[in-house]
Amino acid sequence: MKNTPLNYETVTNAIEGMGLGDFSQATIRDLQSLAKQLEEKTGQQVIHLEMGVPGLKPSDIAIEAEKKALAEGCATTYPPNGGIPRIKQAASRFAKAFIGVDIDPLGCIPTTGSMQGTFATFTAWRHAMPEKDTVLFIHPGFPVQTAQCDVIGLKHIGLDIHGYRGEALIKKLDEILSQNNICGIVYSNPNNPSWVCFKDEELKGIAELVNKYDCIVLEDLAYFAMDFRRDLSHPFEEPYQATIAHYTDNYILAVSGSKAFSYAGQRIGVACISNKLYHRVYPSLEKNFGVGEFGNFFCNRLMYTLSSGTTHSVQHAMAALMEAACDGKYNFLNDVREYGRRAKFMKDVLLSNGFYLVYDNDLGAPLADGFYFTVQYPGMTDLQLTRELMYYGITVFPLDTMGSNEQGVRICTSFFSKELEPLFKERIELFKQNH
Amino acid sequence: MKNTPLNYETVTNAIEGMGLGDFSQATIRDLQSLAKQLEEKTGQQVIHLEMGVPGLKPSDIAIEAEKKALAEGCATTYPPNGGIPRIKQAASRFAKAFIGVDIDPLGCIPTTGSMQGTFATFTAWRHAMPEKDTVLFIHPGFPVQTAQCDVIGLKHIGLDIHGYRGEALIKKLDEILSQNNICGIVYSNPNNPSWVCFKDEELKGIAELVNKYDCIVLEDLAYFAMDFRRDLSHPFEEPYQATIAHYTDNYILAVSGSKAFSYAGQRIGVACISNKLYHRVYPSLEKNFGVGEFGNFFCNRLMYTLSSGTTHSVQHAMAALMEAACDGKYNFLNDVREYGRRAKFMKDVLLSNGFYLVYDNDLGAPLADGFYFTVQYPGMTDLQLTRELMYYGITVFPLDTMGSNEQGVRICTSFFSKELEPLFKERIELFKQNH
Repeated sequence: MKNTPLNYETVTNAIEGMGLGDFSQATIRDLQSLAKQLEEKTGQQVIHLEMGVPGLKPSDIAIEAEKKALAEGCATTYPPNGGIPRIKQAASRFAKAFIGVDIDPLGCIPTTGSMQGTFATFTAWRHAMPEKDTVLFIHPGFPVQTAQCDVIGLKHIGLDIHGYRGEALIKKLDEILSQNNICGIVYSNPNNPSWVCFKDEELKGIAELVNKYDCIVLEDLAYFAMDFRRDLSHPFEEPYQATIAHYTDNYILAVSGSKAFSYAGQRIGVACISNKLYHRVYPSLEKNFGVGEFGNFFCNRLMYTLSSGTTHSVQHAMAALMEAACDGKYNFLNDVREYGRRAKFMKDVLLSNGFYLVYDNDLGAPLADGFYFTVQYPGMTDLQLTRELMYYGITVFPLDTMGSNEQGVRICTSFFSKELEPLFKERIELFKQNH
Repeated sequence: MKNTPLNYETVTNAIEGMGLGDFSQATIRDLQSLAKQLEEKTGQQVIHLEMGVPGLKPSDIAIEAEKKALAEGCATTYPPNGGIPRIKQAASRFAKAFIGVDIDPLGCIPTTGSMQGTFATFTAWRHAMPEKDTVLFIHPGFPVQTAQCDVIGLKHIGLDIHGYRGEALIKKLDEILSQNNICGIVYSNPNNPSWVCFKDEELKGIAELVNKYDCIVLEDLAYFAMDFRRDLSHPFEEPYQATIAHYTDNYILAVSGSKAFSYAGQRIGVACISNKLYHRVYPSLEKNFGVGEFGNFFCNRLMYTLSSGTTHSVQHAMAALMEAACDGKYNFLNDVREYGRRAKFMKDVLLSNGFYLVYDNDLGAPLADGFYFTVQYPGMTDLQLTRELMYYGITVFPLDTMGSNEQGVRICTSFFSKELEPLFKERIELFKQNH
């Protein structure tokens, strides 16, 4: 019987009781319900690092904007399919201020969370390019996006960046794209779960391929501006959020309100379609839907049929946040920089106790500290580590389901409050002693 | 040159300037922008009867519930895929109180407007029954629902009820269903645009066929309880909203917050899945998505991938409205009964000036007065009537696009305020004189 923070037998019995075995079939939901059981049975706190859920309070700017919009009667009238003018203007200005790109208000379309924006994007690709039936995911990534493709009926393949950065990445992508069956490429930047950020030379290389093979990039900016190595918080000033938008017109940027603005509960994001792509006419859209223009199809066929647009008051909230950020009145990164501080603390503890980072550099430079990072302990699989950490009252998420070929687990910093620091350190040190 | 309320030449020029010709290609959007032009050019008011948009102020109950939920912090945390417990409970109780059916809270799933609920429903059918590739619409109906099928990649066919009511309807449906390619049947009750309401004998007949051929009904209750011939406003008392749910388990009811609660701007509806259907396991769902149970698939694969659930604060608003209605504290029909009063006035004017109702009875009984009705003028096509009424400053919507085989136009009562009555009467009388 090992000396573990949570009683060894209790944890083992709970895992067996739930039929979780070696954890190879365990979902994030299973891990959460196991953790809950253990908290009840042992009376001890479990440190939740498995979630990808923001844990900060949103700005009053958003709440007040919603209340005002409701008081002024927005609840009764349908929102326009492409969004209210206010958020379209604000998002266009925000893109200029923090990404340094020019996107007309017309191409800035609010969606019911970025989730709906990516669903609409994949659906648009399917109908615009029926001759190209496969989406290419640069992995690791958010598993729900491949599930979206399954729901829509699109094939998908993945390329794990672990072995492919820089020139190797571009060469490998060229090889894949030369099959001419790829309608679009998806990646998140910073990357969930590894917090890898593509360098400009990589973005430029991807852009050249996208132009060469005429496909579209979906750049998922769920963790917008959270590359804390550079201060991206000053509007209309360099440095800007890195983006492929500088190098190609074939892009859609997914900007989310959930993480950067801690507004996940209200489901708001903005899909930003390049000016050129918005107006590009695809013959199969024209033939099958009577609207050939990509952006027009996106708004008036997809946003219309998916939900008749996005909740009215929430558009005002997101617009107000973007306006305040552009005016320099609200530094949204001040709030979320806390995630970086937490990541730094946890990495220090883990790395000085035998753990190592799985995805560990950006072409030689150390990764930023942010919302997520990935670690592993020598001599274990990711499932073994996930299971073993349960005995130490720490829940993590194995990389298996995220398209990674590497052994490792994802650590999310969002629920790691300051008070947990001593407990975390103590448990990790005990883990080290026992292994 | 005819003596028309809006200058004949101005209207003709505007129609020609927009390239609308005989109106056969005109969309509702074209009609609206034509009307706007005419208002600007003539300085005269256009009476808008083309929209299907609620025009009433929503109850403070909803607005206050949203503000309270926001103040309490709902904006930061993701809503559960299947909805918050409060709305699930409230919707289950509401179904009992006003429809007289027992649906567990588990099966009551809030959606981003009924629009998302029907999108999810069609998507669920596609994946649950891949061997049945066609949806059957009982027409006339809401054209966006057939567009949803096009986006999803489902075939669809329609049956116009104009020639088929009662036994003839059931016989014809049996003939269609015997092809065994129909996964589901869709109708709205009361019907948009005709305001036809199915009788219980018809609902029972459809239910028997649904059981016989093992398909699913989507009953669209967008105009919930607005059959004003019967007072459906008393909770837990007969009469109830007519529904197929009394006769089969193979149903999904789409309850909308947009019309009954005048809450269209916030995008909220509830999809109510029968207890039996919720738990039914479909092998192809299990095989392709790892979740065989229909309701579980609906929540955790569809509502998850479509938008990660429904905006948090709006769920509270809809729940609060349903709770107040069930408690007898809020008679939501008092507000919308105004639509019936308007319909009665307009029908009186039109019918005494040579117009006739297109869809004109429910198995012999007069139709209710409500949100919509359909009329025509002798000796014209619906496009001619739509075009001609423009000269009289009245915008209507031709039935062409709604799956009807009949000549006629849809009149929506939602923007017809009391002050417009004399103007409307005067213009229709002049129309009569000129034709």
